[in-house]
Amino acid sequence: MIYINGELLPDDQACISPADRGLLLGDGLFETMRVYGGDIFRLDAHLERLLAGADFLGIPLPDMGEGLPQALARTLEGNGLARGDASLRVTLTRGSGPRGLAPPPQSRPTLLVTASPLARAAYPPATAITSSIRRNEQSPLANLKTLNFLDNILARREAAEAGADEALLLNTAGDIAEASAANLFAVFDGVLQTPSLGDGALPGVTRAVVMELAQELDIPVVEASLIPEQLFGADEAFLTNSLVEIWALVEVDGREIGGGKAGEITRLVCGVYKGETR
Amino acid sequence: MIYINGELLPDDQACISPADRGLLLGDGLFETMRVYGGDIFRLDAHLERLLAGADFLGIPLPDMGEGLPQALARTLEGNGLARGDASLRVTLTRGSGPRGLAPPPQSRPTLLVTASPLARAAYPPATAITSSIRRNEQSPLANLKTLNFLDNILARREAAEAGADEALLLNTAGDIAEASAANLFAVFDGVLQTPSLGDGALPGVTRAVVMELAQELDIPVVEASLIPEQLFGADEAFLTNSLVEIWALVEVDGREIGGGKAGEITRLVCGVYKGETR
Repeated sequence: MIYINGELLPDDQACISPADRGLLLGDGLFETMRVYGGDIFRLDAHLERLLAGADFLGIPLPDMGEGLPQALARTLEGNGLARGDASLRVTLTRGSGPRGLAPPPQSRPTLLVTASPLARAAYPPATAITSSIRRNEQSPLANLKTLNFLDNILARREAAEAGADEALLLNTAGDIAEASAANLFAVFDGVLQTPSLGDGALPGVTRAVVMELAQELDIPVVEASLIPEQLFGADEAFLTNSLVEIWALVEVDGREIGGGKAGEITRLVCGVYKGETR
Repeated sequence: MIYINGELLPDDQACISPADRGLLLGDGLFETMRVYGGDIFRLDAHLERLLAGADFLGIPLPDMGEGLPQALARTLEGNGLARGDASLRVTLTRGSGPRGLAPPPQSRPTLLVTASPLARAAYPPATAITSSIRRNEQSPLANLKTLNFLDNILARREAAEAGADEALLLNTAGDIAEASAANLFAVFDGVLQTPSLGDGALPGVTRAVVMELAQELDIPVVEASLIPEQLFGADEAFLTNSLVEIWALVEVDGREIGGGKAGEITRLVCGVYKGETR
């Protein structure tokens, strides 16, 4: 069942207008959330990011007759996931409009929610390549989770072609911004380092949780630029996103990081994170 | 009437799947064409660009039971435009896929064609601002007409807020790449200059026609980087795209270009271009 603007419909009856600017121009945003036993993890942080992005783009929420949390709960329920482990995606577009770039004076936005079962799992350590695709850290869109994902798709394709799990995207200055669908953390002498938003990193919800947990664990965290050559010398590295959570990164461009095994701090943060989700 | 994958449907029955990657990830391309008296202007150039982009992205054409030119003709006919003046848009997406960035092993692409009447018109000279949004000339996507148009939408919004018609986007090096929905030409001492594809310009079909016509008219053309400060000193400037054709640009950031009037070469090229469309 798919939720569209207040209605819950069977997949094959759910329909998006061919005039939707989300489709025609990528004019919209999305969020992907993890659901544990029916509870949406860090719902507030996801909604905050979505609404901040919508505010920046000038896209209002549609009138759905209910709030977004209610819409999400109804979608989970309609898919038999009211108590399930799942992934949940919200897509918000500016809706239909006349030809051209200029938004219509009155937006009639489209809000779409989909849910699918996703079991808890421990992922084997990841390998990555450095992509030839550069992320445009000079655009404000770099810090928003927009529908413009083709650069990331191309980067991921390069990873697949190289037999790697993920691709790191450098920004136009040559510093690492993030992976195609994850933020990056590296450990140097007990200090956690992650690219800053200014480097073109998406303000990931899991990234923020990790920074919070590190503080509680008395692990220093710095947001600072990182080039691949520095990453190769890291003691440990890991990737984060809402679905894979904390994912040890043990090889980049064929070079081992941390002896090719998940490091101590990675395992510590991962364990504490998993505790948060119970 | 809207054409989707071989079928011509009334607007309100045309339906895009909420799982379409064009919508969810901007995973697709488009072309906008101008139709004069039922003839699609430079159809071959548009199809060539679309197919080159599709090839690069690895998106096949769907099996429609007919060729793309036939599909376009049928769409015009279905909208009473078989002999009309119109704009025509083709959108090609990778179609539906499972969650995640990796394309499905077997794409089932979506091809969408829409047409609307568009009368021949002469547009009054344009004004533009320099946008704060930078175009990422370091991505191969800069030279493809993809569905990832949010940077351009933001640039156009800045233009509207400043009361200007268009916005010029600089690339990450600070050179002008193009306008939000048009290519840029400037005239210096009788020489036409336009940003190169390496500067982040889209290989516009009208841009190519203008370069061709200039050659026939013995007007030298160079593809070379241009910063705003240089543009302010141009003798003339104009914008090009398939719908507005040749559009005199007489003011940028509040500074007059060419005395605030369409220049001699602009008018000459415009006249010859209009001759081509008859």
